Amino acid sequence: MARESAEATRIMVAVNQSSIKGYPHASISSRTAFEWAVTKLVRSNVTGFRLLFVHAQVPDEDAFEDMDSIYASPEDFKNMKERDKIRGLHLLEYFVERSHQYGIPCEAWIRKGDPKEVICNEVKTVHPDLLVVGSRGLGPFQRVFVGTVSEFCVKHVECPVITIKRRPDEIPQDPIDD
Amino acid sequence: MARESAEATRIMVAVNQSSIKGYPHASISSRTAFEWAVTKLVRSNVTGFRLLFVHAQVPDEDAFEDMDSIYASPEDFKNMKERDKIRGLHLLEYFVERSHQYGIPCEAWIRKGDPKEVICNEVKTVHPDLLVVGSRGLGPFQRVFVGTVSEFCVKHVECPVITIKRRPDEIPQDPIDD
Repeated sequence: MARESAEATRIMVAVNQSSIKGYPHASISSRTAFEWAVTKLVRSNVTGFRLLFVHAQVPDEDAFEDMDSIYASPEDFKNMKERDKIRGLHLLEYFVERSHQYGIPCEAWIRKGDPKEVICNEVKTVHPDLLVVGSRGLGPFQRVFVGTVSEFCVKHVECPVITIKRRPDEIPQDPIDD
Repeated sequence: MARESAEATRIMVAVNQSSIKGYPHASISSRTAFEWAVTKLVRSNVTGFRLLFVHAQVPDEDAFEDMDSIYASPEDFKNMKERDKIRGLHLLEYFVERSHQYGIPCEAWIRKGDPKEVICNEVKTVHPDLLVVGSRGLGPFQRVFVGTVSEFCVKHVECPVITIKRRPDEIPQDPIDD
């Protein structure tokens, strides 16, 4: 018999929003990574695993688009922050609900900052058994300009990492999206 | 409920021999990778997984050490090949036995050649859901001279890859070993 250690295997899943559909839609690569972990690793053993969803929220540079940037008041800033927070929560809600549908225990939280640094820091603090990150599977030319969070994590994170690439039939017109 | 797909999750585990203890001892990094996969992923769900052990056997350059290289006959070569084969089988036997102790179905086979190329080719042919490779966790300086199979696989293999580093307390005196 395989050992069943007392503690569940804790899989951290880094999730982000869609660049095509906007908040609170989950990106294709996040969803692919999540569904892969459930289908291939957790399978029917739902009590043996615990999913930890981390969403790194990049302070939104375009947040002023729909308000008058010259006359922005402190109140505007407060509203903006509030709105960001709600959008992030809606994104996490998607994954938490999916987990509950599968019956897999989970936790979810938001951290502000550069996704690469956020994920590395969270791994240092939380010590998951495994980190799962989605990847857009960009070619070397695209990677130079865009940078990839998954590559950075594989190099710098202190736990085993699985990178899940999008399926070829799910890649959007511009591969840099999602 | 999490879906239980009809087919088991097929995890390919690349294994090699110890450079300290010699054949047929499994290297620390192979054993660490295997035990990690069992403890953290398979857990008690032994029917949900199938382990595929691949051993890439590098044609042994030192094989002539214990015979007279000048007068080596065709018979000597044949014996050498035979001996290599038996040693490779003994290595696999270790992992197959461990799997049986855990109750996890498995397959195991040997391929001759450069481990990097062998592993990539086997993934192309066999299409596992996941490749698990052990890593010695070498620093950048050591990596330049030694090259690491795990890094090559992460970049070139067509399925998700998990690299499992040795535990710090298991690293031998010379980190290039095992």
